[in-house]
Amino acid sequence: MGLTVAEKCIKRSIVYGDMTKRGSRIGIRAHQTLGHDLNAIMTFLALDQLGIDHVKTELSVQYMDHNMIQADYKNADDHRFLQEMTSKYGVVCARPGSGICHQLHLEYFGIPSKTLIGGDSHTPCQGGLGMLAIGVGGFDAAMAMAGEPLYIKMPYITNVHLTGHLPEKVSAKNIVLEVLRRIDVKGGVGKILEYTGPGVKTLNVAERSTITNMGAETGATSSIFPSDENTKAWMHAFHREEDWIPLSADKDAQYDDVIEINLDKLVPLIALPSSPGKVVPVREVEGTKIDQVMLGSCTNTALNDVKSLANIFQNNEVSDTVDAALYPSTKTVIAESIKRGFFNPIVNAGIRIFEPMCGGCNGCGFAPQTHGVSVRTTPRNFPGRSGTKDDQVYLAAPETAAASAIKGVITDPRDLDFPEYHYDLPNEFIQLDNLFYNPIHVDEVHYGPNLKPIPHFDRHQDTESGEVLLKLPNNITTDHICPAGALYLPIRSNIPEISRHSFMTIDTTFPDRAKAANGGILVAGENYGQGSSREQAAIIPRYLGIKAIIAKDFARLHLANLVNWGVVPLTFKNDEDYQAINQGDDLKINLNEMTPDGDITVTNETQNIKFFVTTPLSIEDIETVKWGGRLNQMRNRSDEHVTA
Amino acid sequence: MGLTVAEKCIKRSIVYGDMTKRGSRIGIRAHQTLGHDLNAIMTFLALDQLGIDHVKTELSVQYMDHNMIQADYKNADDHRFLQEMTSKYGVVCARPGSGICHQLHLEYFGIPSKTLIGGDSHTPCQGGLGMLAIGVGGFDAAMAMAGEPLYIKMPYITNVHLTGHLPEKVSAKNIVLEVLRRIDVKGGVGKILEYTGPGVKTLNVAERSTITNMGAETGATSSIFPSDENTKAWMHAFHREEDWIPLSADKDAQYDDVIEINLDKLVPLIALPSSPGKVVPVREVEGTKIDQVMLGSCTNTALNDVKSLANIFQNNEVSDTVDAALYPSTKTVIAESIKRGFFNPIVNAGIRIFEPMCGGCNGCGFAPQTHGVSVRTTPRNFPGRSGTKDDQVYLAAPETAAASAIKGVITDPRDLDFPEYHYDLPNEFIQLDNLFYNPIHVDEVHYGPNLKPIPHFDRHQDTESGEVLLKLPNNITTDHICPAGALYLPIRSNIPEISRHSFMTIDTTFPDRAKAANGGILVAGENYGQGSSREQAAIIPRYLGIKAIIAKDFARLHLANLVNWGVVPLTFKNDEDYQAINQGDDLKINLNEMTPDGDITVTNETQNIKFFVTTPLSIEDIETVKWGGRLNQMRNRSDEHVTA
Repeated sequence: MGLTVAEKCIKRSIVYGDMTKRGSRIGIRAHQTLGHDLNAIMTFLALDQLGIDHVKTELSVQYMDHNMIQADYKNADDHRFLQEMTSKYGVVCARPGSGICHQLHLEYFGIPSKTLIGGDSHTPCQGGLGMLAIGVGGFDAAMAMAGEPLYIKMPYITNVHLTGHLPEKVSAKNIVLEVLRRIDVKGGVGKILEYTGPGVKTLNVAERSTITNMGAETGATSSIFPSDENTKAWMHAFHREEDWIPLSADKDAQYDDVIEINLDKLVPLIALPSSPGKVVPVREVEGTKIDQVMLGSCTNTALNDVKSLANIFQNNEVSDTVDAALYPSTKTVIAESIKRGFFNPIVNAGIRIFEPMCGGCNGCGFAPQTHGVSVRTTPRNFPGRSGTKDDQVYLAAPETAAASAIKGVITDPRDLDFPEYHYDLPNEFIQLDNLFYNPIHVDEVHYGPNLKPIPHFDRHQDTESGEVLLKLPNNITTDHICPAGALYLPIRSNIPEISRHSFMTIDTTFPDRAKAANGGILVAGENYGQGSSREQAAIIPRYLGIKAIIAKDFARLHLANLVNWGVVPLTFKNDEDYQAINQGDDLKINLNEMTPDGDITVTNETQNIKFFVTTPLSIEDIETVKWGGRLNQMRNRSDEHVTA
Repeated sequence: MGLTVAEKCIKRSIVYGDMTKRGSRIGIRAHQTLGHDLNAIMTFLALDQLGIDHVKTELSVQYMDHNMIQADYKNADDHRFLQEMTSKYGVVCARPGSGICHQLHLEYFGIPSKTLIGGDSHTPCQGGLGMLAIGVGGFDAAMAMAGEPLYIKMPYITNVHLTGHLPEKVSAKNIVLEVLRRIDVKGGVGKILEYTGPGVKTLNVAERSTITNMGAETGATSSIFPSDENTKAWMHAFHREEDWIPLSADKDAQYDDVIEINLDKLVPLIALPSSPGKVVPVREVEGTKIDQVMLGSCTNTALNDVKSLANIFQNNEVSDTVDAALYPSTKTVIAESIKRGFFNPIVNAGIRIFEPMCGGCNGCGFAPQTHGVSVRTTPRNFPGRSGTKDDQVYLAAPETAAASAIKGVITDPRDLDFPEYHYDLPNEFIQLDNLFYNPIHVDEVHYGPNLKPIPHFDRHQDTESGEVLLKLPNNITTDHICPAGALYLPIRSNIPEISRHSFMTIDTTFPDRAKAANGGILVAGENYGQGSSREQAAIIPRYLGIKAIIAKDFARLHLANLVNWGVVPLTFKNDEDYQAINQGDDLKINLNEMTPDGDITVTNETQNIKFFVTTPLSIEDIETVKWGGRLNQMRNRSDEHVTA
């Protein structure tokens, strides 16, 4: 039987399990890894405990793109720590300001058919190059760097079949918005979205990567495109044609389901506040007054986007009631934009130009005003993620965002007069000299005062008891659990400090209550832990004493983080039992009953009733979580080894 | 008798007093005012109480350049408030990101021989254009906008006589560093530094403005150059030649003192941590390992500086152990740099490019690492100002900073191989379209939740008593009293909140002790209140109950702020009495004895001794400070009016 593109990639990296059995446990080994300055601190702290001298991958790259404000010593300390650690372990390290990790990786390192494991949820961006790219938490990134396999459930493969051509003024971002409109923020869980059909060849690599990048918001394990002549042209332009190989699905490849999208029929779409899945045509909300526009993020502002913006702003200015900013995605994009004359029309239109970084997308600057309405080209608009608690963030294509900036209200770009836009990929991109550090000599790694050791967690008891400290609704994001924003990101490497802000947008009393109760249990609805890969969203509840989370279901990446850090994930056998539980109830859970298939008894001691839960974990993961997390388990193994 | 350039300007704006009597009280009326987003919130709150509909100046301009990080809603709320207030009062308002106030003002508005009163200590930057430009606190800026005179002591005029030409690789910044090396941070108090001699014509307006800008660090009331053909060329290049007039000192003009500087003999200089007055030749500290370089601020990074940097970085890269950043001074500089090819060599060298703003200079981003050593082209390096408490910040010319970035250690630029640099002022600068907002219609001004009303302060008693809550050394800066940095700047408009951080680098217990003691008295050495114009450095001690400050002497700008906000400034009659006082002593001050010349009795009740102090205030200012500040005084006058 023929293989899909995703299967061909998995075939190349699989080291355990059977890829023909969808949903079964498989292990894949990364050819490459990537990390960034926000999540990789934990990666290197973990790597330091794994007893290796040098990373075991073909290539591992560290980027500096998230924690870039440097309001005090903390970010700069982290950057120094990462520069030293990467020199020590043989990891390529980008300078702060060189660009956003996923976009720089597309330019310099991504290779079709190989496997990338990245410590960031938008890692699937490289799927635009035909690379299998999967986002993980920092600990799993460390394991991948140490040459250990990543264990996942073999994904189902969805065929996203594209036909036709995008109409004028409707750019590629609208394709992924259409996917989200159809399947929402958990429609991709357990799946790889593989793009096929005659529409594929109408899209260049940057456009494809916009789609695979934001595909993360569906909950998918990854998204991927074939590697074809457009891919070859991209790699040629970045002087890497020798790494190109063609990659396409076999004619008789079989998919598990299909999503048909006729590009001819697409209209400008927009995600409403505050979920990337609340997608509607721009027409439905046009005229809504806005305060701010952000052009940037890993999803957009490659060179094609900047050219489109230059084209629009050539004869248009930002409204007097709007503050607009551009974050170019990389320094390469800056240099090319300057060379090609794309920058000055944007500068002239009244747009602020920031350095290449994640910036406003995760609340590192450019937060909107109180109740501020912001239209952004970013992939995510979870509540408060912008840095302003009561924000109203809409997500759209650059053309929609630009038209809205000009008019001061949400505007369908087809209603704005600007010249037809044509973009040809440059034959050759400028190669800048100093985007990456040379390795430095490291006598001693500097741990700044904000960098605290990984906390120690105990092994679980056979029976765990505790109060339900929060009863949460559906779609709790990692932003809820562990806040984003310039005020909180710098303390991500300081678990005692960041834990004080856990669930701050939901219930500011939670951290104190959890400590006072000596821990407890969380209850949640569907899709618990959607969003970013930050493992702190698992570590800080654990640090506050949370032993187990009972939810209707979990987001894939967060589930893996819970296992790694020893928080027991449980799912209701009957979803209606969710209704019966009240915050404050005391629960007792028989963890000794935990198996991949079996029922686990939970006693609600307050209400004096019993109900059943199951665990979505494999037998191996159950063992890990019982140990209280992967680090405990590994330490124990090495202790056994020492005492043997 | 002939007049100096400064006297010719004063003659044009004086409305009270006798300019021939140095040190006497004079009143001058501003033709123009400027403000920025950090200090002008208080300006507009005050203006709102002055009962005018429209500013009374020829031109008032508001800039957005300090509070630009937007870590949450506060900065954006402030920007909206300022946009609305400026529309209401007829003030020109720049967009955030358009540029640094002083540099944009040089490009668009400064006029030789006119008087500018600005709510920022570096306002004398416009002296490079032959404008009399004086920095004040936000309240005095409001008064100036309302058409009220600014009362100052008629300055002494110092002749800074320049001969010769600057040697290669020794740029204009070294001239002001040489002035600081000679007279230190209070050598300019009560003076205007007027530049004369054949060396003047060798300097263009941008170079002159670098000198007048940083001249603020000497404590001078202002610094000024003549207006000549170079000034005309500058104004022509910015399409404002019609505003140019020639301005030079009369042949028989008389100066109060003279500083002779032979430019031929100048060498690269550098100010050591942590005072702009600790200037030595770069040679004395060359080889010192550095971590960071910041190129930017109101003092440097006009187009000539960017060209110089491009020239150096054409064939050189930033060291692997240095993080370097460029803040261009305005969007005009960005557009011109792009057009002329200055940007890509800088990008290629590994330098981060930020938007035009004050940025790292006042700790709004780019803080160095713990114990970090930073070489900066900024005007100020007070302790902790960078955002990192234990910073080690050196101040130097762009060429020294660039050479140090390349070598990784402090480096004399004459030791680095780079092509000879030649800069001709462009005949015409690009005029950008959307740097300034058009006025908007304002139904209601939005006061964000962080914007608190001006606190009410009581009238002083005839006798004030209190504990000496802090005994402070010489050269206490406004950064000590009211911290800079990205974490504190956003709460400057929230006096209760910012007061919690007063004197945080000296004694974190001060705010709580002050509250517990229901206020008290501060004792300080020389030059109390040097540095920035922030009036919060007067308001927050007052808010915490500080009634009087007894110092050896005061910085001019801060002294005016103390009067405006009702903190009584007193100076020791005999400086040795400073020694005798201990922190914790209870003092009783007979404020009813306060006159411009007379002794005021202070009883140290703890030690049971008496000593005498005087006040540096005029009879008018004594009246104001007794009222508990200018707003009290004005309110009382209007109450009298109402009841009369």
